Amino acid sequence: MSLIDLVAGKALATSEERAEHIGPISGIPVFGLDALSSAAYGPEAALTLLIPLGMAGIAHIVPISFAIIGLLAVVYFSYCQTIDAYPNGGGSYTVASENLGELPGLLAAAALMIDYILNAAVGISAGVEALTSAFPSLLPHTLAFCLLILTVLTLINMRGTKDTGVAFLIPTYLFIATLVIVIGIGAFRAFAAHGHPTPVTAPPHLPIGTSTLGLWLLAKVFSSGCAAMTGVEAVSNGVAAFREPTQRNARRTLTIIIVLLMLFLGGIALLCRAYNIGATDPTAPGYQSILSQLISAVMGRGWFYYVGSGSILLVLALSANTSYADFPRLTRAIAMHDYLPHVFKIRGRRLLYSHGIVALVGFTAVLLIAFDGITDRLIPLFAIGAFLAFTLSQAGMVVHWHRQTGPGRHHRMIINGIGAIATGITLIVVLVAKFTAGAWITALLIPALIFLMLGVKRHYQGVSDAINIDRPMHVENLMHPLVIVPMDRWTRITEKGLRFAMKLSDQVQAVHVDAEDCRPDVEQMWQRNVASPIEAAGKPIPELVFLSSPYRFVLMPLVDHILQVEHNHPERQIAVLVPELVVKHWWQSPLHNQRAQLLKLLLLVRGNQRITVINIPWYL
Amino acid sequence: MSLIDLVAGKALATSEERAEHIGPISGIPVFGLDALSSAAYGPEAALTLLIPLGMAGIAHIVPISFAIIGLLAVVYFSYCQTIDAYPNGGGSYTVASENLGELPGLLAAAALMIDYILNAAVGISAGVEALTSAFPSLLPHTLAFCLLILTVLTLINMRGTKDTGVAFLIPTYLFIATLVIVIGIGAFRAFAAHGHPTPVTAPPHLPIGTSTLGLWLLAKVFSSGCAAMTGVEAVSNGVAAFREPTQRNARRTLTIIIVLLMLFLGGIALLCRAYNIGATDPTAPGYQSILSQLISAVMGRGWFYYVGSGSILLVLALSANTSYADFPRLTRAIAMHDYLPHVFKIRGRRLLYSHGIVALVGFTAVLLIAFDGITDRLIPLFAIGAFLAFTLSQAGMVVHWHRQTGPGRHHRMIINGIGAIATGITLIVVLVAKFTAGAWITALLIPALIFLMLGVKRHYQGVSDAINIDRPMHVENLMHPLVIVPMDRWTRITEKGLRFAMKLSDQVQAVHVDAEDCRPDVEQMWQRNVASPIEAAGKPIPELVFLSSPYRFVLMPLVDHILQVEHNHPERQIAVLVPELVVKHWWQSPLHNQRAQLLKLLLLVRGNQRITVINIPWYL
Repeated sequence: MSLIDLVAGKALATSEERAEHIGPISGIPVFGLDALSSAAYGPEAALTLLIPLGMAGIAHIVPISFAIIGLLAVVYFSYCQTIDAYPNGGGSYTVASENLGELPGLLAAAALMIDYILNAAVGISAGVEALTSAFPSLLPHTLAFCLLILTVLTLINMRGTKDTGVAFLIPTYLFIATLVIVIGIGAFRAFAAHGHPTPVTAPPHLPIGTSTLGLWLLAKVFSSGCAAMTGVEAVSNGVAAFREPTQRNARRTLTIIIVLLMLFLGGIALLCRAYNIGATDPTAPGYQSILSQLISAVMGRGWFYYVGSGSILLVLALSANTSYADFPRLTRAIAMHDYLPHVFKIRGRRLLYSHGIVALVGFTAVLLIAFDGITDRLIPLFAIGAFLAFTLSQAGMVVHWHRQTGPGRHHRMIINGIGAIATGITLIVVLVAKFTAGAWITALLIPALIFLMLGVKRHYQGVSDAINIDRPMHVENLMHPLVIVPMDRWTRITEKGLRFAMKLSDQVQAVHVDAEDCRPDVEQMWQRNVASPIEAAGKPIPELVFLSSPYRFVLMPLVDHILQVEHNHPERQIAVLVPELVVKHWWQSPLHNQRAQLLKLLLLVRGNQRITVINIPWYL
Repeated sequence: MSLIDLVAGKALATSEERAEHIGPISGIPVFGLDALSSAAYGPEAALTLLIPLGMAGIAHIVPISFAIIGLLAVVYFSYCQTIDAYPNGGGSYTVASENLGELPGLLAAAALMIDYILNAAVGISAGVEALTSAFPSLLPHTLAFCLLILTVLTLINMRGTKDTGVAFLIPTYLFIATLVIVIGIGAFRAFAAHGHPTPVTAPPHLPIGTSTLGLWLLAKVFSSGCAAMTGVEAVSNGVAAFREPTQRNARRTLTIIIVLLMLFLGGIALLCRAYNIGATDPTAPGYQSILSQLISAVMGRGWFYYVGSGSILLVLALSANTSYADFPRLTRAIAMHDYLPHVFKIRGRRLLYSHGIVALVGFTAVLLIAFDGITDRLIPLFAIGAFLAFTLSQAGMVVHWHRQTGPGRHHRMIINGIGAIATGITLIVVLVAKFTAGAWITALLIPALIFLMLGVKRHYQGVSDAINIDRPMHVENLMHPLVIVPMDRWTRITEKGLRFAMKLSDQVQAVHVDAEDCRPDVEQMWQRNVASPIEAAGKPIPELVFLSSPYRFVLMPLVDHILQVEHNHPERQIAVLVPELVVKHWWQSPLHNQRAQLLKLLLLVRGNQRITVINIPWYL
């Protein structure tokens, strides 16, 4: 066990649970990495769509960013209210299923599961792309690097939430510090230069625009920019991971994350306009990301640039970690309602829902392999799940407030309603704009998952109806079972089987399948070695039964006989004793017939409640 | 079962066995195909080595062929004597192990197994090569055709020996008739033309020779020609397959086969000299086989040529069948002495040793795939096994006669001695000449097989020593076992388990692993649903045991507890009742924990003779 301990950490007792809970300092890396790293690709995604507008397009990023910040504020208040209302973790799944009903709840569950898996895949692939942009010679090994990072993340996460927080603290705060410093210094210089600062390193010159901003393009830019909002859900879903006072710590963490994200989005938009920074074509040579241009312009290409860029790369790669923190909690919550296999409810050695982690890693690996670890191919599948979950969660909160009484509920209903409508519209825009590019895969997977979950629920319900009782035990008819012992030759194994049968019951039947025409030998052996000594000891003598087998089959006549005995004694339990040789090494097993195994299998398939198989292992 | 019946024939009762025995008419196709088909490649192999001698080389084939015929006569008498001495089948394995000891016997066994497998592979690949020579467009599909023929042969053979004989009767007798007619008419014409007949279709002109016959070349030509002797062993090994009078029928069959083979070898050699027919380079264009040239020369290229060529092709392909007849008998004989797994002793539905056929087919398929179904690559591995078996068999017969008393034994010893020396020398020549070309594989495989067989024997001996007894059963200390029932919640499954435990024994222990801190609930449930009703019925109340599990493991504390109980009661049998939910469909099993299976496995690994696991299946 020491190797497992070394890799995964020592096992944790249930009583050690409190120590695993976290505060805002560790909470930001664990639950905020996904949301904060969005700042690195949200504005970029919006500006990329504005490239055809040239220099004129940059001006539009400010109102669009502030619209997204406004939406973010609405979503923030909604989730603060959710944390208040659901202290044990109120993700979209909980909110939607409690307020909107079973099917909307499952819809949210399916959307979130897909979203978390895609978040892990996209985070890892985006990180590896940042790496391969810096070192193009690594490009052919993209998939290998993706799977390597997946493995490292898994090992780190298998140690538990607290260790994870520590491992992610440094890159996260380095990333935050980089952006805060760049935005702070940049804003000061822009203010000092009356809105027209001189860049330290000038960004690439922007061409004259060839088109203007129409309504459809505006909607697409807005919805692309909304990618910056993915990951905001995480805290409200993981409330239970915070230490006391749980809700206050969760709300404080969410507040810090949202304020930072707003600062980043607003700052990036304003500085882009001040420094005339626009997106460059990512498929053309000379491509440079928005953040890279921004840091160069404000701070120049010194050590700060390289440390900052490194932290962006790390944070992108590690943003996948949010999925590790939330996916297992989500699958557990779904499994609690019997919609997923119950293994997701089991806490592993380190108090984690390890099966959820295993499922996440498995599906993420499948996605990475299927899409060759290329972010561009994964992105179209991505935002749908997130916005579907937002919409359902906020619609659920509307119903929640509607059911409440007391002051302020109408005010809150309106905030959530605006959020639901805004995210709902965004969802439709994203779905339409990206449908043929891959969103159809998500659109197909969601109903498939719902169908699966309904099937799981139906099965558990059936099992529960079949086995659950709340009545005292029946104590009548506790007769000894009829014991049947298949017997070949007279060996120690046969002796052990017969002895055990006689310990269990007064009614024992030894059955010999006569496939080799040796009945007289067996009868003589029986009389000499079994019947005589038992008679002398004054015990009841077992019955000896011969089954003829003209076709030399051994198991078929035996199973038929057992079923016949069962049929003839409808009130009795039938116990079949199967002596089994246990070899020392696996490679010795082809040297012995597997009849014991086959007999057990046949009786399991053809048997019923009253037939029981008893293994009599014989160790060499 | 009807599909299996259709493909493999209906199951045969043990009492129908006599009907499966054969006479000489069916015996020749079954046991002689391999030997007779050798006539198609033995002289060819010898003449190919004589190509450098040109026209002058042809003259040498007559003395060499008659030397081989002489050797064949020696071997014939040896095997006739073997049939007399071993009426139940006396292959090289039996003769060598009975007369020379364990290791020479295993050497013969390994050599024969490899020989039979190679014979199947070479026969099939040679047949496919004849086919692809006729239709060169099929060449890319060589391996596919090889595996197809292997499958067809397997299906035919799975029906049993008699059906096989019928299926092979026609091509075999067509082949025999072709050669007898060609040799007869050719000999008559040669005699009539005073040794210089005019060919109907002239064979290719032979070049002037460039070298002369040295001793090394002579030895190589002789040993290549000896390939014509492979397969002679078959009849003596399969004596038991003949109908009464068994030995006479076997001897008659062997006589017919040997006489025909001698006629073929002598006739081919003499006619080659009379018609000036020599081998052509098989790798050069315009290649034509010896038999093809011979039939053309005697009969012309009419319908007779095509029917005759077709029968040669078929017989070559089907000569693999000898392996199907003899390999399972050989493995059975070896398994009877515990040197191979006992499954080889079991007779299948059609009274065949089906596992032997399966093993033969498996290894043949591996060989064909590994060598791409190309005869030339397989040939160097081939003859070693056959001649090793000849040598050991005849050396064994020498010892056999040496041990006998009575007239003629010296005479017989000398015949067998000459045979042993001749085949032994041939063996050494073949091994040296072909070692680097692939014979080293056989030379490595034989000791590996012997090592394996010794290991199998050692294992069976150990098992037999451990389990065999010949004494009456111990009847003391037949106390009820201590029954342990793992219990989670109160369900019908728990009730069934407890009821069954109480049927088996007065001493029952229900064990609850407290991984979820719910001891008070379980205690209350126990008192209400179990203890009270049992007490009211006046039966002994089972003991309730709680096991703490701070790390939430369920199985480990359970197994430790069971081992502890076992340790505390050295005189008692411990029965562990494992309730197990049996789902209707396999895909439902991931929805339920597999703890029952794991517990059984752990107890099988860590348990001992006194711990028994009892499955309590619960069918949904």
